[in-house]
Amino acid sequence: MTTQPTPVDPPELHHSPAFAQGMIVPAGPTLYVGGQNGTDGTGALLDGLEAQTEQAMRNVLAVLAEAGTGPEQVAKLTIYLAGGVDPGPAYAATRSVWGDRRTAVTVLAVTPARPGALVEIEAVAALPEH
Amino acid sequence: MTTQPTPVDPPELHHSPAFAQGMIVPAGPTLYVGGQNGTDGTGALLDGLEAQTEQAMRNVLAVLAEAGTGPEQVAKLTIYLAGGVDPGPAYAATRSVWGDRRTAVTVLAVTPARPGALVEIEAVAALPEH
Amino acid sequence: MTTQPTPVDPPELHHSPAFAQGMIVPAGPTLYVGGQNGTDGTGALLDGLEAQTEQAMRNVLAVLAEAGTGPEQVAKLTIYLAGGVDPGPAYAATRSVWGDRRTAVTVLAVTPARPGALVEIEAVAALPEH
Repeated sequence: MTTQPTPVDPPELHHSPAFAQGMIVPAGPTLYVGGQNGTDGTGALLDGLEAQTEQAMRNVLAVLAEAGTGPEQVAKLTIYLAGGVDPGPAYAATRSVWGDRRTAVTVLAVTPARPGALVEIEAVAALPEH
Repeated sequence: MTTQPTPVDPPELHHSPAFAQGMIVPAGPTLYVGGQNGTDGTGALLDGLEAQTEQAMRNVLAVLAEAGTGPEQVAKLTIYLAGGVDPGPAYAATRSVWGDRRTAVTVLAVTPARPGALVEIEAVAALPEH
Repeated sequence: MTTQPTPVDPPELHHSPAFAQGMIVPAGPTLYVGGQNGTDGTGALLDGLEAQTEQAMRNVLAVLAEAGTGPEQVAKLTIYLAGGVDPGPAYAATRSVWGDRRTAVTVLAVTPARPGALVEIEAVAALPEH
């Protein structure tokens, strides 16, 4: 058994090139990445949907890296978009940072509690055994 | 230790026949089921709340089955209902597919990002060790 | 390796005294605490944001205790606040019960499905190996 999560795609469900219907994570330590907004190193929000989304995704990647893991180990992303946000450009912005790796995803129209935040992204990832 | 999740119901909390207050999952591999809408095998949304909810739950079960596990191994369901949806019929529709198994649940009034989707259901489940 | 979750705080991200950017959970059993509202032992909702928030957090702690674990083992909290709720007093109310432990957190403006509920809190926690 490898330590890398494995996509699950039942043949009776629509197959998406963008996400997996499920992901199996092998036994081992787990990283929970708390909701990341599009904030810089001082905690200030960037301006606009595209900049915030790219930054939120970069923040997720920074937490993964600090924990000694990476995007190929992510089991699930949950992406919260503020009400009225067009999912198209937000999706493109996540892709520009995340690439085309498939993982389980939930995308919801939910306003982050932080005023001015247009997007929040959280993740669950597997870690290699220490 | 069995590999099956165990309900946790503190005596000082209200006891619900419909859900457990918590679920303990033994060490081992985990399946993350991404948010499922009421879509058929071509990716098209079914029509109406009841049909969408039943189909979303069937899609969750299909991902569980493809991963070699089942509803008795589910640790938590998260059910997102679009704003204005009456939770009563949605609940009945989940039950008609899910049955009366108790698991930890969060139910929220959150519009799925996909236009026209009235419900989205995600799950976390234990897998038997391979 | 201890069995206690470890905060992950990349130096390039804003450091918060209130939450960790991520939490690493060692391999082992996991507790999923379903969404807790501010309900008492009869299932009735308490009155007002502060009372509901404190009670919801107490309910989370009761499920942790019943499972043989505690707040120091929590990997992530997700806090849902009804639309229009001021996050400030809600935050203060969570702190009065939760204390100043840092964990990964997502906070969202999402109305719980239960009518009258102003707050819902769910958690994922590590358990010591049995």
